[in-house]
Amino acid sequence: MTKSESKRSGASAISAAAAAAEQVNNGSLDAGFPEQSPAGKAKVMKQTSRESLQRRNTECEVYDDGTNTFFWRAHTLTVLFILTCALVYVTLLEETPQDTAYNTKRGIVASILVFLCFGVTQAKDGPFTRPHPAYWRFWLCVSVAYELFLIFILFQTVHDGRQFMKYIDPKLGVPLPERDYGGNCLIYDPGNTTDPFHNVWDKMDGFVPAHFLGWYIKTLMIRDWWMCMIISVMFEFLEYSLEHQLPNFSECWWDHWIMDVLLCNSLGIYCGMKTLAWLSMKPYQWQGLWNIPTYKGKIKRIAFQFTPYSWVKFEWKPASNLRRWLAVLGIIFMFLLAELNTFYLKFVLWMPPEHYLVLLRLVFFVNVGGVAMREIYDFMDDPTFHKKLGQQAWLVSTITVTEFLIVLKYDPHTLTLPIPFSVMQCWFLGILLILIWTLWRFFIRDITLRYKETRRRKQEAPVDWDRQLGNGSTAAAASGRSKLNGSSETLRQRKS
Amino acid sequence: MTKSESKRSGASAISAAAAAAEQVNNGSLDAGFPEQSPAGKAKVMKQTSRESLQRRNTECEVYDDGTNTFFWRAHTLTVLFILTCALVYVTLLEETPQDTAYNTKRGIVASILVFLCFGVTQAKDGPFTRPHPAYWRFWLCVSVAYELFLIFILFQTVHDGRQFMKYIDPKLGVPLPERDYGGNCLIYDPGNTTDPFHNVWDKMDGFVPAHFLGWYIKTLMIRDWWMCMIISVMFEFLEYSLEHQLPNFSECWWDHWIMDVLLCNSLGIYCGMKTLAWLSMKPYQWQGLWNIPTYKGKIKRIAFQFTPYSWVKFEWKPASNLRRWLAVLGIIFMFLLAELNTFYLKFVLWMPPEHYLVLLRLVFFVNVGGVAMREIYDFMDDPTFHKKLGQQAWLVSTITVTEFLIVLKYDPHTLTLPIPFSVMQCWFLGILLILIWTLWRFFIRDITLRYKETRRRKQEAPVDWDRQLGNGSTAAAASGRSKLNGSSETLRQRKS
Repeated sequence: MTKSESKRSGASAISAAAAAAEQVNNGSLDAGFPEQSPAGKAKVMKQTSRESLQRRNTECEVYDDGTNTFFWRAHTLTVLFILTCALVYVTLLEETPQDTAYNTKRGIVASILVFLCFGVTQAKDGPFTRPHPAYWRFWLCVSVAYELFLIFILFQTVHDGRQFMKYIDPKLGVPLPERDYGGNCLIYDPGNTTDPFHNVWDKMDGFVPAHFLGWYIKTLMIRDWWMCMIISVMFEFLEYSLEHQLPNFSECWWDHWIMDVLLCNSLGIYCGMKTLAWLSMKPYQWQGLWNIPTYKGKIKRIAFQFTPYSWVKFEWKPASNLRRWLAVLGIIFMFLLAELNTFYLKFVLWMPPEHYLVLLRLVFFVNVGGVAMREIYDFMDDPTFHKKLGQQAWLVSTITVTEFLIVLKYDPHTLTLPIPFSVMQCWFLGILLILIWTLWRFFIRDITLRYKETRRRKQEAPVDWDRQLGNGSTAAAASGRSKLNGSSETLRQRKS
Repeated sequence: MTKSESKRSGASAISAAAAAAEQVNNGSLDAGFPEQSPAGKAKVMKQTSRESLQRRNTECEVYDDGTNTFFWRAHTLTVLFILTCALVYVTLLEETPQDTAYNTKRGIVASILVFLCFGVTQAKDGPFTRPHPAYWRFWLCVSVAYELFLIFILFQTVHDGRQFMKYIDPKLGVPLPERDYGGNCLIYDPGNTTDPFHNVWDKMDGFVPAHFLGWYIKTLMIRDWWMCMIISVMFEFLEYSLEHQLPNFSECWWDHWIMDVLLCNSLGIYCGMKTLAWLSMKPYQWQGLWNIPTYKGKIKRIAFQFTPYSWVKFEWKPASNLRRWLAVLGIIFMFLLAELNTFYLKFVLWMPPEHYLVLLRLVFFVNVGGVAMREIYDFMDDPTFHKKLGQQAWLVSTITVTEFLIVLKYDPHTLTLPIPFSVMQCWFLGILLILIWTLWRFFIRDITLRYKETRRRKQEAPVDWDRQLGNGSTAAAASGRSKLNGSSETLRQRKS
């Protein structure tokens, strides 16, 4: 409820700022800053409005009639009461078994459940409110619990850590069987007369829809075609580079590029982009369910409860400045690291790929990844440096790092297997190219632009000096920065 | 930073509402609601202003220049970086010992530390901001950790739970020695010729300053003279009633009433009330440290960092309506329960009274109790029902209940010792009196008032009817509720 209110007040603030911006544009800007109004104040107003206008382009407008039904209220007292009753029942009316191991396990599970009770009703809300803020608070608490579990595992010896998994599922803690991933890579196998394409059909397993669905969701998280494609291609490169460590990374060339990148991933990204386009165009009008007259409208409203409350288009703009560029590189790095962790973690903790914990971890990442990505975007997009990095983004970063550290601690041998020389060369070249581009884009290009600007100014100077003698010498200095700083000052210069 | 901003916006909203209220009072109220402005809107304005004016009486005005130095910023990225470095160091550069028990302990401690890192930077802020919001976030996280620990203890068998304390301190888990609390209660003991007052001096131990300090802090929490005195006296009654269960509750009559209630507690409450008066009168002006010119001013500013950001006088008003009455009874009940838990918990968990954990628990309650009390007051004072019960209040309630359940589970024998008949009679009488008063105050008194009002109206009616024939019959109905509802409607009635 507080969430929706803050959203609405935010929206009204934006529209007020936008109105102010129009006023500035129609009024005093062309005429220069009049002396009677303090220039500093006007400048602040101008800047605010520019930011809010920019923000308005990426953020959709929301209409909300502010209805908050029973469903929406914070049930803090209800949860407290039910929790108390449950504790009274379990501890006083049930007989405590004499089995210490069982009680310990039960105590830990109960602690986690109480933590979830607290968190789901009381934790800080994130950026998402649909279908219910409690849903996202739940996943936040799960993140905390998962991170604490990872920290615990990290502090055990390798043997103890693997055996600890037995407490979760007694079938775990057993070494994985060696698998043969080498195979025939012929698309058309003339040796097999009954079905020469049998190699292709063999690869058509559950991973095809998994790849598609995965990339559909990742596109909804990242909300940018280019970044998705780069991550998708980069991951195949990583698979090539690391197939000497994990045998299940070794695939046929056509499996890498045609089936994974071209078919599954691209189709997923394409469908994701279509959904994004729909989400950014659809109207965001929230009416209370009882205020909707028709039956069809009510059904539609219930269905729309599972769509976002409002929509923000992500414009990562990595090339706009050095900070954003480094941030985008960092995001891509962490994303790829999290994807690699999926494979390495099950390898070092002896988890069979089809185990339900592996699937649960993916479901977890799907739910927290979207929130984290939005929080990172908000953090980057915020012009002030005071803002906090969002809680879910903070946790997802810590979880990714902790998972990587577990892999590093549990199997340093696999991770330090010598990398083939050709792979090293490729990576070295890639990193070099990125470095050169960074240097050129954010350091050399600026110097070149500045030099060109100075030369142009020198050529124009004799003419300008004649005209502007009355205005004094400060005008020329202002004009020197005009190209770099933007439009308004140039306009003023030209008009004068 | 966000906190201070919200505070300031809150203050400006209050002053705006107050200004609106003055407008209403000077303008349209006496003249009735003019037809050209919609009456609904005006009513809403009136109500808001009345609430905010009431709120203004209990809340002080705050001036803040909005300076936020480095000290105030959210160091989310810094903490993330330091945490990552620490994890890398501990897990990769340190050798993991082969001792499973030691590693388990270390893993749990590390999990708690990581949880604190997360919570201190990211948890939801409470009502307090001084000396630093992170301080109160820290205690929130400690509450969560303590509650989870209690839940774990609650799910163990009695033997395992007591032995579990050995993991925290190897000296624990040993039965407490029987102590003889019976003694000579003569104030003047003629048998002892060298020092006939030796019984009095014997009682002058560390508990005297402890009682004084405890009640000083409790007064700052509760901020109400009457409630403090009631709880102080009630606790002595509880000691009398429960001395058959816990022998250390048995004290001499003059120790109960003169030394505890009259001297230590009353003096503590008196000093607390003086401090409260000072806090509610002192100006709340917050300037950035670098904006203060003098050296003395800077020192004063640093010292004032440890005083509250703003001040809210608590006006519990238990008799104003049934909801507040029940809430105040509930608060007193929970307060006394938490105090009893201090004694019972160390009894059932075999903790010596001088153990540092007992002291730590009290330090913990001092820190979280103040926040919880403020949150409960805000929750009660809020006219809408949408508001959440504050997170710390929620946790303190859960902790108190869980502690009580542990006591109940670990030693049902002591708690069900038959209560002496005289004690039963006293409690029965007390509860009966409270019930009767409740019935009279919130049910019978209302009916009596309503009856008197009806009779008065009937007597006045013939005169009124003659005058008000033009206004129609609705005026009489409105006058019927005038005494109960308050002032403005009566005013209108009289004027017309």
